Amino acid sequence: MNSPAVVRNIERASADVIGRLESHGVSTVHEAQGRTGLLASYMRPIYAGACMAGSAVTVSLPPGDNLMIHAAVEVCRAGDVLVVVPTSCCTDGYFGELLATSLRAQGVKGLVIEAGCRDVLRLTEMKFPVWSRAISSQGTVKAMLGSVNVPVVCAGAFVMPGDVLIADDDGVCVVKREAAEDVAKASGSRAKKESETRERLARGELGLDIYNLRKKLADLGLKYI
Amino acid sequence: MNSPAVVRNIERASADVIGRLESHGVSTVHEAQGRTGLLASYMRPIYAGACMAGSAVTVSLPPGDNLMIHAAVEVCRAGDVLVVVPTSCCTDGYFGELLATSLRAQGVKGLVIEAGCRDVLRLTEMKFPVWSRAISSQGTVKAMLGSVNVPVVCAGAFVMPGDVLIADDDGVCVVKREAAEDVAKASGSRAKKESETRERLARGELGLDIYNLRKKLADLGLKYI
Amino acid sequence: MNSPAVVRNIERASADVIGRLESHGVSTVHEAQGRTGLLASYMRPIYAGACMAGSAVTVSLPPGDNLMIHAAVEVCRAGDVLVVVPTSCCTDGYFGELLATSLRAQGVKGLVIEAGCRDVLRLTEMKFPVWSRAISSQGTVKAMLGSVNVPVVCAGAFVMPGDVLIADDDGVCVVKREAAEDVAKASGSRAKKESETRERLARGELGLDIYNLRKKLADLGLKYI
Amino acid sequence: MNSPAVVRNIERASADVIGRLESHGVSTVHEAQGRTGLLASYMRPIYAGACMAGSAVTVSLPPGDNLMIHAAVEVCRAGDVLVVVPTSCCTDGYFGELLATSLRAQGVKGLVIEAGCRDVLRLTEMKFPVWSRAISSQGTVKAMLGSVNVPVVCAGAFVMPGDVLIADDDGVCVVKREAAEDVAKASGSRAKKESETRERLARGELGLDIYNLRKKLADLGLKYI
Amino acid sequence: MNSPAVVRNIERASADVIGRLESHGVSTVHEAQGRTGLLASYMRPIYAGACMAGSAVTVSLPPGDNLMIHAAVEVCRAGDVLVVVPTSCCTDGYFGELLATSLRAQGVKGLVIEAGCRDVLRLTEMKFPVWSRAISSQGTVKAMLGSVNVPVVCAGAFVMPGDVLIADDDGVCVVKREAAEDVAKASGSRAKKESETRERLARGELGLDIYNLRKKLADLGLKYI
Amino acid sequence: MNSPAVVRNIERASADVIGRLESHGVSTVHEAQGRTGLLASYMRPIYAGACMAGSAVTVSLPPGDNLMIHAAVEVCRAGDVLVVVPTSCCTDGYFGELLATSLRAQGVKGLVIEAGCRDVLRLTEMKFPVWSRAISSQGTVKAMLGSVNVPVVCAGAFVMPGDVLIADDDGVCVVKREAAEDVAKASGSRAKKESETRERLARGELGLDIYNLRKKLADLGLKYI
Repeated sequence: MNSPAVVRNIERASADVIGRLESHGVSTVHEAQGRTGLLASYMRPIYAGACMAGSAVTVSLPPGDNLMIHAAVEVCRAGDVLVVVPTSCCTDGYFGELLATSLRAQGVKGLVIEAGCRDVLRLTEMKFPVWSRAISSQGTVKAMLGSVNVPVVCAGAFVMPGDVLIADDDGVCVVKREAAEDVAKASGSRAKKESETRERLARGELGLDIYNLRKKLADLGLKYI
Repeated sequence: MNSPAVVRNIERASADVIGRLESHGVSTVHEAQGRTGLLASYMRPIYAGACMAGSAVTVSLPPGDNLMIHAAVEVCRAGDVLVVVPTSCCTDGYFGELLATSLRAQGVKGLVIEAGCRDVLRLTEMKFPVWSRAISSQGTVKAMLGSVNVPVVCAGAFVMPGDVLIADDDGVCVVKREAAEDVAKASGSRAKKESETRERLARGELGLDIYNLRKKLADLGLKYI
Repeated sequence: MNSPAVVRNIERASADVIGRLESHGVSTVHEAQGRTGLLASYMRPIYAGACMAGSAVTVSLPPGDNLMIHAAVEVCRAGDVLVVVPTSCCTDGYFGELLATSLRAQGVKGLVIEAGCRDVLRLTEMKFPVWSRAISSQGTVKAMLGSVNVPVVCAGAFVMPGDVLIADDDGVCVVKREAAEDVAKASGSRAKKESETRERLARGELGLDIYNLRKKLADLGLKYI
Repeated sequence: MNSPAVVRNIERASADVIGRLESHGVSTVHEAQGRTGLLASYMRPIYAGACMAGSAVTVSLPPGDNLMIHAAVEVCRAGDVLVVVPTSCCTDGYFGELLATSLRAQGVKGLVIEAGCRDVLRLTEMKFPVWSRAISSQGTVKAMLGSVNVPVVCAGAFVMPGDVLIADDDGVCVVKREAAEDVAKASGSRAKKESETRERLARGELGLDIYNLRKKLADLGLKYI
Repeated sequence: MNSPAVVRNIERASADVIGRLESHGVSTVHEAQGRTGLLASYMRPIYAGACMAGSAVTVSLPPGDNLMIHAAVEVCRAGDVLVVVPTSCCTDGYFGELLATSLRAQGVKGLVIEAGCRDVLRLTEMKFPVWSRAISSQGTVKAMLGSVNVPVVCAGAFVMPGDVLIADDDGVCVVKREAAEDVAKASGSRAKKESETRERLARGELGLDIYNLRKKLADLGLKYI
Repeated sequence: MNSPAVVRNIERASADVIGRLESHGVSTVHEAQGRTGLLASYMRPIYAGACMAGSAVTVSLPPGDNLMIHAAVEVCRAGDVLVVVPTSCCTDGYFGELLATSLRAQGVKGLVIEAGCRDVLRLTEMKFPVWSRAISSQGTVKAMLGSVNVPVVCAGAFVMPGDVLIADDDGVCVVKREAAEDVAKASGSRAKKESETRERLARGELGLDIYNLRKKLADLGLKYI
């Protein structure tokens, strides 16, 4: 019922907000927005230390066919991240060094793909970050249409074009574009509070005391033996 | 039938024995105790080169709830390792930088958790070793009781509080506390013997000759073509 | 019906051809031979940057029993790679530092095993590359026969003794011995062409234009919004 | 950021449209709406022959806690289906005979749950259909809030409250409420056409001829040997 | 360190207690003993409607080798159930019609095996119930020792010889022998209470009212919209 | 390097031999040919009691594209079975009622597909047997070429066109065409021997005695306690 289409223009969050979200990282942002928006844990970075945040340009495409990634490159802008989802379960290597070179030339920060990725040694050398469900050389064709900048479900999370994706060693999290400013603020508050807590814990104070848990444990009926 | 409880005091193996087990590593110890005690291979370290051994402080807790980890921190001693097992299958990120900071302040050497772990970049920088079945930012609550220092089954292995856990790049192995001295000795013997075998193999001798396998192969009826 | 046997002599591709295949890597070779020969993506290297190519010495053996690996070492030659497949699904740690020492002494380049591997820290230090489906300390016995240099299916790919295996961070690919020369040539052509494409993409040209995809997209009926 | 809430009233598709979708079944409906809306294939019925269609009442709840299912029962109407999704991966047995009895008393037609289900023998005797990712006795608590009638992602498909869920032996498919009328029509057309095709195939005509594929195969360059 | 051994005599719970546990079924027993003792949900019956309870005769054996099952048959008594666990992960078909015939001749009620089972059509015709993690024809050898009537971990649950295993369509649960009498009583109470609840739910009363959950929801801050 | 092609004519085993193999079933045949040829245990029948044997017509095709199944139908003969393998991992529903109707009209006995199948209720009613790795409504296109009657690896087993596939509740096994006569004989002998053993076991004789295992256990050092 939906014909394949490319939506050229999407709204994006501000670079400032995206930068702040990136600086806080996935775990803090995920907590700050009420433990929502996390992609499934099978989405892993191809190298340790990978991190990024950017506006999602989404791609829905058939299994084993990367034609639409090429169509998507053209509508990406500097600071975007590409989010690629096959219409059915697939681990083929849709993406490698050539597409990374092309995306980098457009200023795209990285890729989140619910499928496979290849040329991972070269991508690591380029420091082009990718989060994928598999590493696979399996080649794809350029034969069939899909859509660019439509809503997608990626690894269990609903992503609208223009939403902010944050990704690091802990995984990938999506923040609704309209909520990005608020979530960035909440992330900042949380980070500050965690920093204070960290210092207290490092000095040997217990979470039981810092979080006031002794009473809760007693009320719940915990016994000590 | 079992009410939630924290057992404050447990018996531990001697630091000397634990140190010797750590020096031999998981594969040697596992062999030395008759190929028993190995946790399932889905328990992986969060960074290459992680290794540790220590006395197990065990935690049994509900899915998605890390309250009891806080209760466990208090009963840990220097040299312990924490072993955390949800009562049902769960990949949530129960543990991150803050809890690692707290455990380190108590002298705890690391964590084995049959669930998820987060802040892995920071934990790697801290060199706080964790073996987990998943890496996940998924936050947990502090709402419900569990138990500390009760027998648990972790990744298919039975662990009593005070048993010795050895963990490295190869995985995780549990040694019964009462057997730790004997296993350390057997590990030493095995390591020595392997060292001699290694030298012979490095010089080009064949396992067929070193282990006297040619006769066995012939007796079993192997044909050479 | 097949009695266990060791085939001592197999035909091999030339060292020159194997070297050229190795230099191109798995993804290029896989594409160059028409997207065939790839092993399943669960076969992963034990350390980043591992790569090799060599003539396959194949081993078919029982679950939990590595006796036949010892028989295989004797028939390996410098430049070979060992390919080990249990007769039923198994993740035991058939292979570790001792066998790697022995194989290296014979000039063997590395291992592909559809099972488990152990001593991965030491193997990494030795730079002895292994692709496996699991990392596991689980020890094996030396009790039962299997065969060496028989056809095997490894991780979904059919491998004949003497076929060329190429392995790197992207996975593992098998090239038929008789086709190795042609595939090496086709890989070279592909690599050259990709190099030109890479430069154009790096300058900001789009794949849509380089691959002439705009007409295809229009013919297929893609809409732009 | 979202506080837990129960939305009491939702819009629903007409009973007539839902009935027509149910009569066509999952595979036909999925095709008729352009191969979209299918839940992942790990969602399986607890007994062969189970089938249903209804308006989705959605439940988002914590791992291991079924409190919100009780809150959802109250807002269900005759002809609804319950769609239950934990906020993180969980296979606990949230649902059994008692809840099925309660739902049936409200006229609810069945359950789709991305978690576990228990009492499956009794549910089968009751002919209360359930599609789940696991069968598990693992009990849940009634301790924490979630939400009812919010958008959810269930097994990879985005579901809005009031969308139509169709489920049978082939799996589960979601149809947008607003599109339900059109999809029902398209399903009817497709079913009619398939019925004609079936008769021709049964008489021995080939798909090659009926679908006019011989020319396509020739154009694509297929060789016959 | 442990030499292979067969323990001939074990203590068993009374037939009366075992019968009462069987009549209540897995889900009720699991709840009655505090939600413990459940085996992982990948243990599935080979046919719908399978159910049994009995005293566990445990077998620990190597991957791909069923010799010790034969040794175990001899020490089984009428009313026992066999619990078979390989020392490492294995899906081979250790068990089929012949062994079932032998076990039935000894009065054994069924099998729980953390591996594979075969001849399932014949076992179904015989109504010999088996819970396994796989169905596989893969044959096993009779070459190596293991142990009978030692403690085992089966599918994540710790089982002592003589513990009571209950199994039905919902899965498998273990009850400690010493607790069996108490658990049977608690199961009876729970079943009675559930029966009353079922009637109230069937009449249309809501769980919200029966379990007094409205106040809890309000206290936790649930909003209705 | 291989162009897509359809091989029209293949050699087949005799109907008599195929019939005898079918009568013995997968587990007996697999044993009789030396425990080889078994497909992975994730290949399951869509209904209990499904069984068949026939000559393999093989299909290699792209993920998500069933065009080549239509090309294959034309070259099938009465008594054949279709074996379908995607070139990369895929669970799409390539096959349903229409194709089953077409295959039946040609006298084809059933399907083995390392992907998904749909319309399973109808296929069950038709008693058209299918072994698949998934049940899925996910539709496929008819856009790209593959090959018919080429060697394939299906679920870990190597299959040549014309090999005999036997499939039942226990799984699927392939018998080389040239060996089919011998394997049928060996299966007959085995079945006869098993029948005698079954009677002895049913009378209460122990496998320990029938297979003469007591001496072996003693020689291996088994202790009785």
